[in-house]
Amino acid sequence: MPELALELRHFIVDTLATHPGHLASSLGTVELAIALHYVFNTPDDKIIWDVGHQAYPHKILTGRREQFSTIRTYGGISGFPRMDESPYDAFGTGHSSTSVSAALGMAMASELQGNTTRQHIAVIGDGSMTGGEAFEALNNAGVSKANILVILNDNGISIDKAVGGLSRYLVKITASPKYNRFKERVWRKVGGDEKETKSKNFFSKTLSSMKSMLLEGSNLFESLGFRYFGPVDGHDVNHLVEVLSQLKDLKGPRLLHIVTKKGKGMERAERNPVVYHAPGQFDAETGEQIKKNEGVQPLKYQEVFGHTIIELAEQNPRIVGITPAMPTGCSLNMMMETMPDRVFDVGIAEQHAVTFAAGLAAQGMVPFCNIYSSFMQRAYDQVIHDVALQKLPVILCLDRAGLVGDDGATHHGTFDMAYLRPIPNMIVCAPMDEHELRNMMFTAQEGVGGPIAIRYPRGASVHPDWQSPMQSIPVGKGRCLHEGQRVALLTIGHVGNAAAAAAEQLRGNGYDPGLYDMRFVKPLDEALLDEVARRYSHVVIVEDGCLEGGFGSAVLEYWQQRKSADPSYPVPAMERLGIPDAFIQHGPVPQLQHDCGFDTPSIVACLEKIYHSL
Amino acid sequence: MPELALELRHFIVDTLATHPGHLASSLGTVELAIALHYVFNTPDDKIIWDVGHQAYPHKILTGRREQFSTIRTYGGISGFPRMDESPYDAFGTGHSSTSVSAALGMAMASELQGNTTRQHIAVIGDGSMTGGEAFEALNNAGVSKANILVILNDNGISIDKAVGGLSRYLVKITASPKYNRFKERVWRKVGGDEKETKSKNFFSKTLSSMKSMLLEGSNLFESLGFRYFGPVDGHDVNHLVEVLSQLKDLKGPRLLHIVTKKGKGMERAERNPVVYHAPGQFDAETGEQIKKNEGVQPLKYQEVFGHTIIELAEQNPRIVGITPAMPTGCSLNMMMETMPDRVFDVGIAEQHAVTFAAGLAAQGMVPFCNIYSSFMQRAYDQVIHDVALQKLPVILCLDRAGLVGDDGATHHGTFDMAYLRPIPNMIVCAPMDEHELRNMMFTAQEGVGGPIAIRYPRGASVHPDWQSPMQSIPVGKGRCLHEGQRVALLTIGHVGNAAAAAAEQLRGNGYDPGLYDMRFVKPLDEALLDEVARRYSHVVIVEDGCLEGGFGSAVLEYWQQRKSADPSYPVPAMERLGIPDAFIQHGPVPQLQHDCGFDTPSIVACLEKIYHSL
Repeated sequence: MPELALELRHFIVDTLATHPGHLASSLGTVELAIALHYVFNTPDDKIIWDVGHQAYPHKILTGRREQFSTIRTYGGISGFPRMDESPYDAFGTGHSSTSVSAALGMAMASELQGNTTRQHIAVIGDGSMTGGEAFEALNNAGVSKANILVILNDNGISIDKAVGGLSRYLVKITASPKYNRFKERVWRKVGGDEKETKSKNFFSKTLSSMKSMLLEGSNLFESLGFRYFGPVDGHDVNHLVEVLSQLKDLKGPRLLHIVTKKGKGMERAERNPVVYHAPGQFDAETGEQIKKNEGVQPLKYQEVFGHTIIELAEQNPRIVGITPAMPTGCSLNMMMETMPDRVFDVGIAEQHAVTFAAGLAAQGMVPFCNIYSSFMQRAYDQVIHDVALQKLPVILCLDRAGLVGDDGATHHGTFDMAYLRPIPNMIVCAPMDEHELRNMMFTAQEGVGGPIAIRYPRGASVHPDWQSPMQSIPVGKGRCLHEGQRVALLTIGHVGNAAAAAAEQLRGNGYDPGLYDMRFVKPLDEALLDEVARRYSHVVIVEDGCLEGGFGSAVLEYWQQRKSADPSYPVPAMERLGIPDAFIQHGPVPQLQHDCGFDTPSIVACLEKIYHSL
Repeated sequence: MPELALELRHFIVDTLATHPGHLASSLGTVELAIALHYVFNTPDDKIIWDVGHQAYPHKILTGRREQFSTIRTYGGISGFPRMDESPYDAFGTGHSSTSVSAALGMAMASELQGNTTRQHIAVIGDGSMTGGEAFEALNNAGVSKANILVILNDNGISIDKAVGGLSRYLVKITASPKYNRFKERVWRKVGGDEKETKSKNFFSKTLSSMKSMLLEGSNLFESLGFRYFGPVDGHDVNHLVEVLSQLKDLKGPRLLHIVTKKGKGMERAERNPVVYHAPGQFDAETGEQIKKNEGVQPLKYQEVFGHTIIELAEQNPRIVGITPAMPTGCSLNMMMETMPDRVFDVGIAEQHAVTFAAGLAAQGMVPFCNIYSSFMQRAYDQVIHDVALQKLPVILCLDRAGLVGDDGATHHGTFDMAYLRPIPNMIVCAPMDEHELRNMMFTAQEGVGGPIAIRYPRGASVHPDWQSPMQSIPVGKGRCLHEGQRVALLTIGHVGNAAAAAAEQLRGNGYDPGLYDMRFVKPLDEALLDEVARRYSHVVIVEDGCLEGGFGSAVLEYWQQRKSADPSYPVPAMERLGIPDAFIQHGPVPQLQHDCGFDTPSIVACLEKIYHSL
């Protein structure tokens, strides 16, 4: 097995060197994956990998070695476990902290079906353990007799450094010599005992003596009704096999605490697991990252956000930044360095992040709460109930809105415009470029009388010079970029650039479409929409979001209201381009936008068809 | 103070006897509210009452004694704390488990503003403590130096009996003689010591000796970085004042565990706190509930759900029921009695409830996961990511959809159609009456190839006989209830009855509107919509949900698509009646529906206007 571990680790490093993916997490679970598949009878026994970043060794061991180099590529295997990819993927993941809930559901199903031997295993990192859903599940599982084994994969790091009380606690119990000596003794005894019943007796005796020595439920997980085992070295595969074999024969909720190293076996990754979480291409020998020479590129929206919030915070002492465990991803790490007191990394805890921001706003602060669009789904109730209902001036920054590319269905930020616009008091806007992003951030921190959401995509912005002077934007006002003839393009956010390119191309072909960057999903620029309705017979709306209930749907609603109040109101004929009613898989963003029919060529084709019909 | 407590308790009982409200929770916090307002400098110090059911004594003590009899009535004070009602309501609540997050946000704001004396107090029940957001907040607060005091109001009951590992743990530490003897000693010493510094020294010395005696972080809350105090009797107001005064002078995150009795001081309520959570009218002397003699009324939708799931579960052994802490409210308590193994009360934990249901479904079970519409907002990501993306056959029952009445803005289920219909793979339907509810439940458990959401309102259904034979409904098929002339009413769900009454009335006035119960928000009955478009020049859509992105918006989208594909498609002129873009306050449902403009008279007026214009 140690040999297999070495081989597997090399295979992962060699493959990911040229086919980018989540490296460091998966290097940390090589031994665990081997031990689990050795000890348990998968796929009948169920293993659920929380988040799923760390499931690469599992994928390779379960029949996907050949396809492994296609990971996260268009048409290739997913970067996360997926039920439709393999029977060994017992439950799909992507967002954190779901594994214990799902495993408990499966365990209760087995129990009801009279299957007393099936094992249900949730592998969850210490970062994911801070997500509230994991606690809800532990609380529920602890009083059940469910055949559930939670493996706490403790590497002191989620994507960024793990934070919070739980994380400190784990360090404490891992480092406590007294506790560990005691545990050590338990394990030694167990390991040396060959008869199952005897070992069980020993277990229960030792455990109860431990319990009388310490306080009943003295361990956090024992408090909740779990039997706690560990901490054990998660890179000693033989020992893991031994321990798991013992735990397999116990019943009821158990938690095994293993300690692993993110990036294990690759020096650079061990030293810098945040960078090597998903390092892109690198040299397989040295580990050195290979930077593509792409000339001078526009900054990423994320970087523009990171620089701009510092610029604003230097002027406005009320500004603070909040991130649920994504400081590097969203670039709040820059502000953390320069103004550490004014940035809060609250852990993987989107719900708390939003209510916490509401609390700050209630006391006069100006919080920028930055959460990836697809993760904001976790805080939907808090946005409604704590922020919007109380009209608190929280600035929600929805990073990675729209199609995100390689991470696929779980991570696309496709629903945000649809789920935010029904909320009363919300202002929802999307910048077409980084200058607009800066202006929207500037406007937001000046105060807009309530909450505001700013959505922007993952990746490169538009201009070579991002550092524009900032100015206020009137809330609910869009921009006419070009007055055209007969057909108008109405866009929201960054996708406006694809539309602008299409308009440019069409002008070359002798057409002259109008071009409008609407800026605000809510409130709509009604005056501008009236102007568009008067001027054009046809309108094409383009959005990087779901068509059901999205931005185009808001325009439809407005024009229907006008028409209903005034039957002579000239509602234009409409086309809506955006994300159709399906979960979009992983692949390069341009390819996905093409598949959805709103990349530049698709927009050109749509308008040409309309012009031809006129 | 004990006298004031007695007086306050009498006042609450006397008032609520005739003006129904949340009785038992508020009787449990009389002494706490007095002690808090005695010790702390409100409103500068901030008290946040989690959920807020229990904040009545606080409201009465902070200037709202005169208005107290208007509680939960139209135009009267709210049943929950509200920032816009009083400066003493530091943060609005209604949904559970938000208070620690909000208090921490305020505490960090005070710290950044250089205010080192302001106190930030979250009062949270043991039930609410199981909600994941509370854990997220504790985890975050534990590593801060925030001036935050969490008061765990432990009454062993939330609305129904509290469940889960945490609840058992609290019983354990409350009942543990060794632990309590030790704590007792701490408190005695502290109480007897008058010098602040000395008492602080004692505190830290005793605490560290305790820590060395037990394991570091041996208490669940201490594990997370809080200093834990208690348990203390929450009905001994003098002792509470003493303890709170001591805790006030300490810094950093502290948790005080108090033990109270829900319904305290009213025998019947103490004995049956679930019934007396919100008992309606009762005799102030005896406590006996006053049942209105309303003749034979239709059963509540909730009761029909409760009976029907048992009926189905008797036939289909794969059916299970899931509720996050609302067994009595949603009527799963009936199935709990007859089939205890097949109902899961998972605690206040909507996120976990949905993923747990997904886990059950993944293993072949048929879970009915019953969650109030406004609480489903808490599980939005889980519905998308765990259920819909994996197309798991989970049956989501959205109880209390639409306007709910007296509970007001936090509890209206207004957004569900708008936030569910953008989700791919979801089927979303709403029954017009209890027979339809039964048929939808029957259809759902037969299997519809993926997840299905059934939304139905709070309160009485329609027919005197609910026990109809059940039959399958074809997915995505609506019903023509009456073929009329020129104008058609299109409705979804129970509000169809208001439209039917309007149509009846209009027929009396010589008009003949068509009437269509669309049944499915998603997928839409496109063939029926085509028929309607061909047949009528005008359509009025009525929904008990938000207009932005709601059911009417879906119809608009469909007709726009048809029109865009075929310019000769006859899209009718439209009106959409439903909940406007505002948070709706509390009051009787008919009044609120009237205000929103979709009760029967409003529908009649709308159609008459259209007929006159023809």
